[in-house]
Amino acid sequence: MMEKHNIGVLGGGSWATALVKLISGNNVNVNWWIRNRETVEYIKKYNHNPRYLSAVEIRTDRVFPSSQIKEVVEQSDWIILAIPAAFIKQALSALTPEDLRDKYIFSAVKGIIPETNEIPADYLHHTFGVPFEKIGIITGPCHAEEVALEKLSYLTIASSEAYSSKIMADWLACRYLKTIISTDIIGTEYAAVLKNIYALASGICNGLGYGDNFQAVLISAAIREMNEFVSCVCEFSNNINDSAYTGDLLVTAYSQFSRNRTFGNMIGRGYSVKSAQIEMNMIAEGYYAVKCIHEINKKYQASTPIIDAVYNILYERISPVIEIKLLSDKLQ
Amino acid sequence: MMEKHNIGVLGGGSWATALVKLISGNNVNVNWWIRNRETVEYIKKYNHNPRYLSAVEIRTDRVFPSSQIKEVVEQSDWIILAIPAAFIKQALSALTPEDLRDKYIFSAVKGIIPETNEIPADYLHHTFGVPFEKIGIITGPCHAEEVALEKLSYLTIASSEAYSSKIMADWLACRYLKTIISTDIIGTEYAAVLKNIYALASGICNGLGYGDNFQAVLISAAIREMNEFVSCVCEFSNNINDSAYTGDLLVTAYSQFSRNRTFGNMIGRGYSVKSAQIEMNMIAEGYYAVKCIHEINKKYQASTPIIDAVYNILYERISPVIEIKLLSDKLQ
Repeated sequence: MMEKHNIGVLGGGSWATALVKLISGNNVNVNWWIRNRETVEYIKKYNHNPRYLSAVEIRTDRVFPSSQIKEVVEQSDWIILAIPAAFIKQALSALTPEDLRDKYIFSAVKGIIPETNEIPADYLHHTFGVPFEKIGIITGPCHAEEVALEKLSYLTIASSEAYSSKIMADWLACRYLKTIISTDIIGTEYAAVLKNIYALASGICNGLGYGDNFQAVLISAAIREMNEFVSCVCEFSNNINDSAYTGDLLVTAYSQFSRNRTFGNMIGRGYSVKSAQIEMNMIAEGYYAVKCIHEINKKYQASTPIIDAVYNILYERISPVIEIKLLSDKLQ
Repeated sequence: MMEKHNIGVLGGGSWATALVKLISGNNVNVNWWIRNRETVEYIKKYNHNPRYLSAVEIRTDRVFPSSQIKEVVEQSDWIILAIPAAFIKQALSALTPEDLRDKYIFSAVKGIIPETNEIPADYLHHTFGVPFEKIGIITGPCHAEEVALEKLSYLTIASSEAYSSKIMADWLACRYLKTIISTDIIGTEYAAVLKNIYALASGICNGLGYGDNFQAVLISAAIREMNEFVSCVCEFSNNINDSAYTGDLLVTAYSQFSRNRTFGNMIGRGYSVKSAQIEMNMIAEGYYAVKCIHEINKKYQASTPIIDAVYNILYERISPVIEIKLLSDKLQ
């Protein structure tokens, strides 16, 4: 048996709940930070997260929910960050670099910190001084809903040194979850961000009435664009068609569970950003991501017609009809 | 205006009907060979194909249906072959090399001639002595049903010399159809065959209850496998993520219109091959293709675990449950 560790999971959403299910299923203790106190009490009493993946039974003999983030971090030597990127800065504001010293921190975030335009790995390094060797990534293709249903899924676990990714992979793997080890923490994290933008684009086109033929051209072009962008921002030597990149894009762009696709769909059908967000009652991370990536790309100047189109629609208020028509002339 | 040509389209199915719609829409005359005499008479009388894409109006001022293949070929200087691969040998049996001399022949087939295990380009070359410079390919991603609906679609037109592909592209392009020129006639044609097998695999997994997460891993792996196979059988220097390869795979594997996916779905749910074929009343080309590719790959020995799994299920009668379980251990 492996050495006994305490894992802290930060975040109370679907993905955090799925990760808690996986890790606790492997007989590992989980300290689980959830902001909302009532949710913490509910889980302790009823063994279910009332708001997300509520069918999943939480094994409270091994899972210890708490609304005190400092306490959870203190009691854990490994931390998994599963908070929407837009809320990370605020959520971690109670913590100091000292609190995170010597801990392994894995990001399962799939977004960019809007205040600093950084992927979580860079944010943790620059703001909390976490060395890159202690930072890891947990990435899909993986909808939380299918983990809840115990449908066979694959996660890619990336870290710059094999030790920590191997351990994290062992904690996550089970009968219905296979793990893949990678050393690419920057490329996987950018890909996880970009795919939300492409899923949003895919939804917009669907909402406008474009069909499956066009969708296939759009997604093929998105894979090439993702390759171009990731190659610009880091030393990328992996195959863009590996499941952490192309697979993650496909599951998000083609799946019924994708919030980003649903959000895009509403924009394509003529909803305003505000009314789409109210209607969905969920954050479409691609909405924030496209603004951040747009900013970041001012430096790298990668050719990104699809990202540009989504940005123009959401932030420059260009009509989706016009913008996608222009995009369609550039695609092939 | 371009020089006046006569185009012969051979085949009476959905794809042939969509191509006839496109070409005749560009004010080009089409001699249309359809085996079934009653269908020919019906089209002449009612301006619609009674069996496929029956909503499409056939402009009989420019489209001349006939059940006499020799006559159609004789009167046409360009031929488009749009017959299911399994019936090509029989359909062309009335023709001699002399009949096809000096004609440009474009294959829109997406299958392998089962009797000889050749892609149509090789078959036309070896059996009718058609030089490769006179052979072209018309390939997707493009479901005929969406051409009928005039949904924006993209076709790749490949020929070894730019002259003929450019002309063919002009005849096909219109408001809702964009064309891409390529010189890769072998790779595009193999990709068009392989994608049917992968769509079949995708359907089998869906029928077995695997979810979207697994599907994304499967299709990412299929793209890599397609790249491996195509690189083994020809000098392949294109990007496998171009729409003629990856796009064609995506539209087939993810679309509701895909016969191969539907067929696979039934196999996954426990139907026998025979009962699935009777139920569908349509040919799933992937069923024949996997046998041919399996034969062809004996020579090239490309690593093709997905193709092997489909072959084992359909021809070695291995249980889909077991075979896909074994496959899932190889994927990543």
